[in-house]
Amino acid sequence: MRFDIISVLPDLLQSPFAHSILQRAQKKGIAEIHVHNLREYADNKHKSVDDYPYGGGSGMVMQIAPFAACIEKLQAERQYDEIIYMTPDGVTLNQEIANGLSSAENIMILCGHYKGIDQRIRDIYVTKEMSIGDYVLSGGELPAAILVDAVIRLIPGVLSDETSALTDSFQDGLLDAPIYTRPVDWKGHKVPEILLSGHEAKIMAWRHEQQLKRTKERRPDLLND
Amino acid sequence: MRFDIISVLPDLLQSPFAHSILQRAQKKGIAEIHVHNLREYADNKHKSVDDYPYGGGSGMVMQIAPFAACIEKLQAERQYDEIIYMTPDGVTLNQEIANGLSSAENIMILCGHYKGIDQRIRDIYVTKEMSIGDYVLSGGELPAAILVDAVIRLIPGVLSDETSALTDSFQDGLLDAPIYTRPVDWKGHKVPEILLSGHEAKIMAWRHEQQLKRTKERRPDLLND
Repeated sequence: MRFDIISVLPDLLQSPFAHSILQRAQKKGIAEIHVHNLREYADNKHKSVDDYPYGGGSGMVMQIAPFAACIEKLQAERQYDEIIYMTPDGVTLNQEIANGLSSAENIMILCGHYKGIDQRIRDIYVTKEMSIGDYVLSGGELPAAILVDAVIRLIPGVLSDETSALTDSFQDGLLDAPIYTRPVDWKGHKVPEILLSGHEAKIMAWRHEQQLKRTKERRPDLLND
Repeated sequence: MRFDIISVLPDLLQSPFAHSILQRAQKKGIAEIHVHNLREYADNKHKSVDDYPYGGGSGMVMQIAPFAACIEKLQAERQYDEIIYMTPDGVTLNQEIANGLSSAENIMILCGHYKGIDQRIRDIYVTKEMSIGDYVLSGGELPAAILVDAVIRLIPGVLSDETSALTDSFQDGLLDAPIYTRPVDWKGHKVPEILLSGHEAKIMAWRHEQQLKRTKERRPDLLND
């Protein structure tokens, strides 16, 4: 699976992709992540990629030409399953969408910055507009990293213990049960006895009950879906 | 405002905090971001901070002792408004929560990794459990960066154009209107005439209409709240 990310701040994404699971997936040859510097596609000598908004108002708007040049260059090289624009008014990412994207071959991600990108880029090129949640950030770079992380960890072979992804929160529509590790007693705070019992069936029943309880308390909306 | 982030992968967070608005806020002295390496608080010679889950199951669980040591050291130095654990079963971050946190003085953020952290850390130390959305990621580091970004940009003086944050999506409960910049005509794709009219009142009315239309189409749930 290949990701091409277009950004005006490619260096911002350097460390998140160089560690942990994203690094491992790339080393194993399961995923490729390419970050493209939008400024290299600017058609002016100052390498500027933004301009004032028509109709006035605060904030700068990213121009069409540099995005068009980068997108079209990449499209000439391979076919993309999706060209995704990260924006707070897009469809909100969830586990189901991440599952769906994990079987794609090539995904392009456009990162906005400043006030956003010229609407025509969205109209002409973008196939999916995605948000990671109802809050505003300084750019689309961190959301792009979130999307890449959520998707790549689902590709078979990426996680060292494959069953781990299947028991994650949301995969079965429920939140996770509480988890504990050593020591059994930490300054009087003890691990629930049932987890030390060795009765596998009882432990599974307890965990399921805890999952239901936690989901009912914290996210009743997940139970109604 | 000061953020203390506790992570087993501090280097992962290096580049996001060294660019853009987060860098600017730190340079201006408006925000401090400190990332602490959890392994330095491990009490064993292998610097291991995780162990197998009681009751069996896949994935490793982060232990209490290293977190407790790091949290208590920081608490001895200053008071924290919140100790936040980033977890998919936490309260989902939104703009209102980000607004609220932006007036805090000191915030501590715990990043989980592997399968999660021992429940007792949550019970004893954590004051707020936060999720950035309904999807699973490989660790709490990127969510911590998202939270920091969402909050820091709201502190007065961080954004170069302060009105910019106030007109963002969600601040007025509506999504943004489409935005355009030069050129007026891009390969036949034109900027809406109204934006070139110079009639400020008409432009504002058009934008509000577009905001309502987009919100109704994409996020009717925001209108019902």
